[in-house]
Parts: sequence; C-alpha cells; structure tokens
Amino acid sequence: MGVVGVVFQASLLLFAAYSSLADSWRYDGIGVAPGPTVIPTRGGVWPKPLKRTEEDGYLVVRPSAFKFNVNGHDCDLLQSTFSRYYGVMLSANRRRTRMSRNKSWRKDANFLGYLDSLNVELSTPCEFMPHAAMEESYDLHIAKDGSWLSSKSVWGILRGLETFVQTVVLSPDGAALTVKVSETQDSPRYKHRGLLLDTSRHYLPVRSILRTLDAMEASKLNVFHWHIVDDQSFPYQSAAFPELSNKGAYHPTTHIYSRENIRKIIEHARLRGIRVIPEFDTPGHTRSWGLGIEGLLTPCYGGSNPRDLTPDGSYGPIDPSKPENYQFLMKFFEEVKQLFPEQYVHLGGDEVSFECWKSNPDINDFMANNNLTGDYAGLEEYYIQKLVDMVKTLNISDIVWQEVFDNGVRVPPDTVVQVWIPNGSQNEMSQITAKGYRVLLSSCWYLDALSSGGDWKKYYACDPENFPGTPEQKELVMGGEACMWGEVVDWTNLESRVWPRACAAAEKLWSSPAAFSKKTSRSHPLPWYRSSNLDNYDMDEVSARLEEHRCRLVQRGIQAQPPNGAGFCPGERW
Amino acid sequence: MGVVGVVFQASLLLFAAYSSLADSWRYDGIGVAPGPTVIPTRGGVWPKPLKRTEEDGYLVVRPSAFKFNVNGHDCDLLQSTFSRYYGVMLSANRRRTRMSRNKSWRKDANFLGYLDSLNVELSTPCEFMPHAAMEESYDLHIAKDGSWLSSKSVWGILRGLETFVQTVVLSPDGAALTVKVSETQDSPRYKHRGLLLDTSRHYLPVRSILRTLDAMEASKLNVFHWHIVDDQSFPYQSAAFPELSNKGAYHPTTHIYSRENIRKIIEHARLRGIRVIPEFDTPGHTRSWGLGIEGLLTPCYGGSNPRDLTPDGSYGPIDPSKPENYQFLMKFFEEVKQLFPEQYVHLGGDEVSFECWKSNPDINDFMANNNLTGDYAGLEEYYIQKLVDMVKTLNISDIVWQEVFDNGVRVPPDTVVQVWIPNGSQNEMSQITAKGYRVLLSSCWYLDALSSGGDWKKYYACDPENFPGTPEQKELVMGGEACMWGEVVDWTNLESRVWPRACAAAEKLWSSPAAFSKKTSRSHPLPWYRSSNLDNYDMDEVSARLEEHRCRLVQRGIQAQPPNGAGFCPGERW
Repeated sequence: MGVVGVVFQASLLLFAAYSSLADSWRYDGIGVAPGPTVIPTRGGVWPKPLKRTEEDGYLVVRPSAFKFNVNGHDCDLLQSTFSRYYGVMLSANRRRTRMSRNKSWRKDANFLGYLDSLNVELSTPCEFMPHAAMEESYDLHIAKDGSWLSSKSVWGILRGLETFVQTVVLSPDGAALTVKVSETQDSPRYKHRGLLLDTSRHYLPVRSILRTLDAMEASKLNVFHWHIVDDQSFPYQSAAFPELSNKGAYHPTTHIYSRENIRKIIEHARLRGIRVIPEFDTPGHTRSWGLGIEGLLTPCYGGSNPRDLTPDGSYGPIDPSKPENYQFLMKFFEEVKQLFPEQYVHLGGDEVSFECWKSNPDINDFMANNNLTGDYAGLEEYYIQKLVDMVKTLNISDIVWQEVFDNGVRVPPDTVVQVWIPNGSQNEMSQITAKGYRVLLSSCWYLDALSSGGDWKKYYACDPENFPGTPEQKELVMGGEACMWGEVVDWTNLESRVWPRACAAAEKLWSSPAAFSKKTSRSHPLPWYRSSNLDNYDMDEVSARLEEHRCRLVQRGIQAQPPNGAGFCPGERW
Repeated sequence: MGVVGVVFQASLLLFAAYSSLADSWRYDGIGVAPGPTVIPTRGGVWPKPLKRTEEDGYLVVRPSAFKFNVNGHDCDLLQSTFSRYYGVMLSANRRRTRMSRNKSWRKDANFLGYLDSLNVELSTPCEFMPHAAMEESYDLHIAKDGSWLSSKSVWGILRGLETFVQTVVLSPDGAALTVKVSETQDSPRYKHRGLLLDTSRHYLPVRSILRTLDAMEASKLNVFHWHIVDDQSFPYQSAAFPELSNKGAYHPTTHIYSRENIRKIIEHARLRGIRVIPEFDTPGHTRSWGLGIEGLLTPCYGGSNPRDLTPDGSYGPIDPSKPENYQFLMKFFEEVKQLFPEQYVHLGGDEVSFECWKSNPDINDFMANNNLTGDYAGLEEYYIQKLVDMVKTLNISDIVWQEVFDNGVRVPPDTVVQVWIPNGSQNEMSQITAKGYRVLLSSCWYLDALSSGGDWKKYYACDPENFPGTPEQKELVMGGEACMWGEVVDWTNLESRVWPRACAAAEKLWSSPAAFSKKTSRSHPLPWYRSSNLDNYDMDEVSARLEEHRCRLVQRGIQAQPPNGAGFCPGERW
C-alpha cells in the first residue's frame, strides 16, 4: 500500500483509548505480554540533545495563532524552513488547525499558558550553502513568559526547529498540541554525519532521493554521500561527455540524473542544511565508464599460452598509462566542480583489481619506462597521485576510501580517509589518525548487512572513537557515514531498509556520550576498547525514543520499518 | 515513494535502447561486468508450467480488437476475471490501446498473424468458492488458426489466464504486444499453496492484504492463511464478543477487522481462486484474548515461598479446567464458521507453555480429579481433543501446528498437520505421514529469516517431499506455506519482504520436477535426501525468469524487491 493511501486524522477517542490500553500492556514476567514490545515515548527527541531539562508544566500551541518571530537576521532559507516545519508540526500530529472545543486542558494543573510564538534569534547573517565547518549548535528555551530559539548560524536554527517540532505533541487526551516547558542546549558531536546512497547498482528515482533527504533532516544527518556511478551503470549525465550516460546508463533517458535533476536534489538538500558530496570512484569500479569513453579502461589480455597473449575483450581499471585519460578526467571533474557547490568530492580508490594491469604488456612497459618498479599498488599510487593533484588545481578537496591510505599514496594533508573494511577497522582508524589524516568511519554502519529484526542495536553499539589513540588522534575523527549499497535495494525497499536503522548511526554521530546520564555518572572514562559498550546507555530509554522517532518518520511519509518488535504507531489510520 | 507516483508509458526508443544495451552487458570473465547481474526473460512464465513448448513464430495482440470468447460455461466470476486480466495485460506492458503506426512487425518473418480472440472453454459449470479439492489444471493453445484455453474448472481457467497474460509481452522494438505460438499443458504439483500473514504483531491495513492477494494470484498461490490474532493484539471483531477487539486490539476502531473488512477480503480472494483460512491459535498465544474475556486464561501463581503461592497477576494459556471456556469457544467458532466459507479453520496448538499451568493449584486439582496423570502435555491433549471434537460438530475441518501431533493428541483422520520447526522437519514429515495424516510444510519457507540478497535460492532449495517415506506417505503431502510472521513487519516493509521471496515457494509448490528439463533428463530418480538439490535445476534460467516475474509484480503495483543483484526493470519510468 502506498503512502498516499494513509490518511491521518485526529480523534479524541483514539488517544484516550491508546492511553488506557498502554496501561494494560505492562510486561508481566511470564512469556509474551499483550501489547507492543516497546511503548513509544511522547515527544522524545532523536538524536538526543546534549543537555535538555523538562518540567511537568506545558504550554498549548494554538495552530491558528502560532507563528515564528524573527528577532535577529532573516533570509529566504529561514522563511522556507518556518513554513516547512509549521506543516510538519501539524501533519505529524495528524491535526487540522482546529482544536477540541471543550478546552479540557484548562482544568489541568500542568497547563501553564499558550505558546503563540517562538522567537528565532539568529546572531549572524544566513549562510547560503551548508559546508564542512558549518555551525549547528543551538539553544531552545520554552517557558511561560516567552520562548526562543537561538543560534550563531542558520544551520543551528534548522536543527533547533527540528528539535522543537519533535517536542510538540498531542496531549494524552488528544485535545490539543502541547509542548513542555523545557531548556535545551544542543551541539553535534561530529561535523560529518552522512548517509551513502548507491545509484549505480539500481537507479533511484529523484523522488526517492528527495524523500531520503527529508528523513535525513529529521534525524539531523547532514551529508548525502552520492555514490552516483559504478561498474554496473552510469546514470550521471555529463554535458561534456554525453556518451557516458547514453551508453553507460541502464537507460539513456529514463535512468539518468540530468543537470536539472541534480540541481533539484542539491537545492532540496541545501534547504535542509545537508551537503551533497558526489563520489566518482576511480580507477576501479569504472566498467560502465568504458562503454562511453573509448580507450579509458585497460584492455585485459588472455590466452592459453603465456607467449601469445592477446586482448580478450574484457576490461579492467582506468588505464593510467595514457595521458589522454588524465585530460578526460580533468575536463570531467571541471564540470563536476561547476555543478556541485560542495568543497569535497569523493574520489573513491577502493577495490582496485591488479589482475588486468598485470596481464597488459603496455601497462608493464609503461611501468618499466617510469621506474614504477615493484607491485601494482605503485601504479595505483601513480594514478591517484596525479588525480588528486589535478583536482587540487580545481579547488576540490578530496575524500578517499581507506585503500588509498593502505597503498601508501601520498595525498594532501586535507584529504579525508573513509574507513569501510569491517575487519581491523579500529587499527585502521588508529593508523590513519597517527599519520595526521582526518577520518570518517563506515565499517560498522553497512546497512546492507541484515538480520531479522532489532538490528539497529548493532549499529548503535558502534562508536567512531572506539580505537586506540591519543586525544589528538581522536580530534581527527570527523564523523562517519551509514552506507546503503544498492546491489539488492531499489525504490521498492530503500526506505524500509534505511529507516530507522540509519537513525542509530545518526544518534551516535550527533549525541555526545555526555548527553546520556548513565554515561556521565561514571567517575572514570572507559578505556577505548569498552567505550562503545551499550552498558553506558539506558537501552530501554533509547528503544522507546526510537520507537517514537520511527513513527514520526512514517507520519512524515517515510516507509520506515518497525524497529523493536510487535507494536503500532499511535494515531495511525487507514 | 509511493507506487502511485510511478507512471508507465510505452516508448519505442525505450525498448530499442534496452535491447542494444543488453548486448553490451555480457559478463566477460574478469570482475564485475557493466549492466544487470541477471537479464530478465521476456514472457517467461512463473511458476513454470508442467509442459510448455514455444515456437519462434508469434501473433500480435491488437488491444482494441482483442476479446475473450466464452465457448463453454460462463459466469460472473469468469467475466470479472476477463476484465481484470485485460487490464493487467495492457498495464503490465505499459501500453495504451494504441499501437505503433508503422506496424514494423509486418516485415518480420516470425510474424504469423493477429490474435484477436482467445476462446475460453470451460467444460463444467462454474464453482462459486475455491476449496481444498479444486481443480486447477488447464490447457492453453496459441496458434495462427485459433487459440483456446480449456479447463474442467473455472479455477483452471483463472490459472490459465494468468499464464496467458504473462506471455503477452511487448515486441523487442516496443511496437506491439506479441504472444508466441505455443502449447501449454499445466497442472499444479500440490493442492495447497499458501502464504501466512500475521496481523497480530502488527496490524496490516485491509489494502495491504488485498494487494498481497493480487500478488498471490500472479504467482498461483491459492491459500491465504490468516494468522489473525495472537498474544500481542486481537484485531478480529467478533459480533458475539465485541470486548475481544474492544480491549484486545491495538485500537478498538482503527486496528480491527470488521465483518465488512473480512467479507471484502474473502470476496477479493474468491475472485482470484484463493481460499482464506483463518487461524485462531489456542490454547497458547492467547494473551490478548484475556483482555476481553474474564476468566479465559489461566492465572499464574508465584511467590518467594512455595508454601504460600498466590496469583501473581500474570496469565498463561486458556484455562482448560473451566467448562464455561468451552462454551465460549463453541459460540466463538460458530460465528467464525458463519463468516468464513472455508471448510478448514487453523486451530493453532503451537508453543503451549506449561509453566503457568504447573504453578496453578486449581489446574493441578483438575488434573488429579480427571486422572490426567503425567505431564502437562496430557492436559494440552485434553483441551485440543475437546476443541477438535467441538468444531467437528460445526462441520469445520481442522489444521493444527506440529506440536499437536508431537504431544500425541488424538485428532480426526482428516486433520492436517503443519510442520514449522526447522530442526528435524524431514523426520517430522516422515513420522506424521507414517501415521496417515496429511501434512503441510513451512519450516523452510519462513520469510522472516533474512540475508542480504538473493536469499530466494534458499527457499527454492526446499522440496516438501524431501523426507524419507513411501510413495503412499508422499501422497499425504498436501503442499506448504510461506510464513510472514509480523514481529518486525508492517505495511511499510511487508511487500518488499514477501515479494518476490515467496515466489520461490510458489514455484516449488506449483511446478512438478517434471516441468524442469534437466530433472527429467535423469534416467534414475534421485533418492529423497537429494531430491531438492538445485543441481536438478538450471538456476540461470530460474533466476532470469524470477527477474522478469519480480518486474511483473512491480508493474502490477506490488513493491517487490530486487531478487538477483544489480539491475532494473525494462520499461520502468518515473
């Protein structure tokens, strides 16, 4: 059933009944209790803010009266965010703007008044594009005598508005929208909190990507790592080299991303404070490139007799021996730089197979002529080195997969290395940071690794600083990314597979250990090898909050799957 | 993204381009080739018919001229099936009724003429409801000088129409709908080919169930096993006992199945030749029943001191010691029998925990007074025995889970036993059939067991007759069921998790080993312990056919996920 078929309506009965049932659903010790496995929180914030105190007293939000007041700087981005979140606040609570007429809350001792406006205090002018160093901290103050949200940056205002609407919930009797008197000081643990989507193994419709960005915003993820092309297909439409997608896409007009598509995605992301980092993975993972660019890939040689090897019709990585290939790459990345406003481009560099290079006599001649003695990792180094130096002249900063570091390639000091191989990832993080490089972790957040249910906890157990190293080394951890590779995922199962599992990574990337009281109560910090231990977390609290957050995503139109076992989303209707 | 957003349109360019790309996608021996992992068939039938021969010659279907001619018996069911399949034939091929004007096929040597009508020859009057013994065999003859579909039963006509529309496909240049000259004689291997859905752990909207029935028809599954209630919630609305869903459903008005809902589901299933077998699992798995019926469940006793045990407030299975509980069950199943036209009701009987019975002094007194010496399996036997005898008086035939057999309960000879425990299932099948009972297999078709991709092959490797036994024992295998338990599945991920994985079970249940030429070429039948070996199948052929069938489901609006790795559905558009 499509999301379109889901109609949410408010109902007093609905919420009254839910409250009473919830009481009878307490787990009672023997076997399975009736009712949901985990009862969702009501107004729990995901990811958990650094510091938040709540009181029992609450204010009532009157949708027809409520507005955002701009007290500091203003801009289009801010105004469009207000209007989006105003819509989310109402629709996520399944409310029209009309409230119950009986105003039952007025008899409630905890009712302290109305919240008719939130003062938004932005202390510096709006920035236009989200970027690697953007500030996202904010303070949110909800009180009887005036409520405000403040930040030094428009991105902090965006994050604070997300927190604000998450805390505006229907009263238990369903009569009104309420928000607790509260104080929030929030700041992200890491600057880089990403999600990778792979649009090569399966093409993802633009609409799926836009919806993914919506869900990312709801979980305060701020980097869309777009693994746009790979061996299987080349959906990126290049103006300079149209044959790349004409011949390399699954289909030359329906399974491509045009410049207009890409601009739309970047703009949708910008409005949500999300960076779009494209990845053009070379020299391996490029088989689909070869369909459009003659001579780009290395012809592999084969034959039964080693003496008379001939090209066997198959192809390997980009041929690093040909000067014209670097000319092509220069022009290609020039266009990429024009289209993508982001400072960083991911250059890939993973899983380069040396078999084909080994088989090719021209490659071996080239290596001999250029004193590239030794193994083929040296040839890879030669290629990556030239590529990195080249994109540097285009003012592109680069991210690369860990193999580039493993193969000893000399890269600029501002290169970011992404760790993905599961085995030995702690050691890898340690070695990369020891050399002074900045690092991103993905090894423990591969969303294609499935188990039957509740497997978000294994993602939650991951901590990017869980490796042996000095405080200086830990400073080099920029964050991490959840990765949704596309071999078995397309638009039909993308949303349910990513959400809410990626939310576990989102919380571990946003919320400092200090945000969790159990952790802060320890007098001694844990040693590195125990720092990701879930003992530090009240997993019942986390589960209940994720149960609500998943329903929040569903209410916003995302097909997020159930995270915790049996249950339902309060207020869902068909 | 919702299915509603997917618009399919015909395009000459589209299909021409696909054909040429497919040529460049041949796997070439080193590493990953560009293009899809598996190229789909074009007009491959799923599940595979018993006997089918195709020729290169084809006929063109002119949508505006085409009609179904009734030569034999006729009925409303038949007419509504014609109109449904006419729609499927056009929409699944993304065609309006207008064809290409250039009529390019007329120059093709394989073009033999037009198929303007299919003669439907039903030799006996239509039956109204599908049933356990229904006939589903059919013959389909597509030829230049007249085409016909014949069957002894309206259900066979339904299955034959599904096969027919699966073979009507766009020509490679996209200009016309074509169907190959062919001869099909088809017959199911088993009479019972089921899918279990669990609507207790998560409520499934009626629309999700209807769509599931559509997908079942497309794969020739014919039993919807509706595990409608369980410990967690009781969405079945009973007229005689409204408190059951008022108190036991997740929500008393939005998370229930009313009589109208149930009738709608049964009617939707009837029109597709699918039986609806409800399961009301007792005496265990009944915690949600206890919320609505006072005294139904056994109160459990606890306490630190064995001498002064008292009821601890928790509850166990139905209390078999109380006569009023049997009165309740009689009235309850009377209503079930009125609502569900199906001869069979599933009575459950699985996973009965004895802990609570053991703790309860009244239960122990009752056992002593009724000479139920020995263990509590004897008490379970007492309960099931009474229940089975009771529903027999209502003219209900029963299916039970394997534990009922394991615990030695004396059940009527027409009882069907469903095997679900993975360990020892072959031995279990052997023992049950040795006692002369009919049997259904589910152990190897639990769809909640996940792996990252391509895991349909593990379901495909399962064969219900893969156990040691005589030919007479094998005769007692009625079929099997794929099971989609609902702990971590609701409407958001139901379709992508069930489809196309359940199609593997569907083919193994419909298609006899004789349908596969590799198998029939063996001069000696395989011994039982090797009979499910995939060596007997050309798995490349099966994979390519499933790749197409999955796209067929997507084109019919089902969010079936990719089965085989990278790729796309030819003709999909956004």
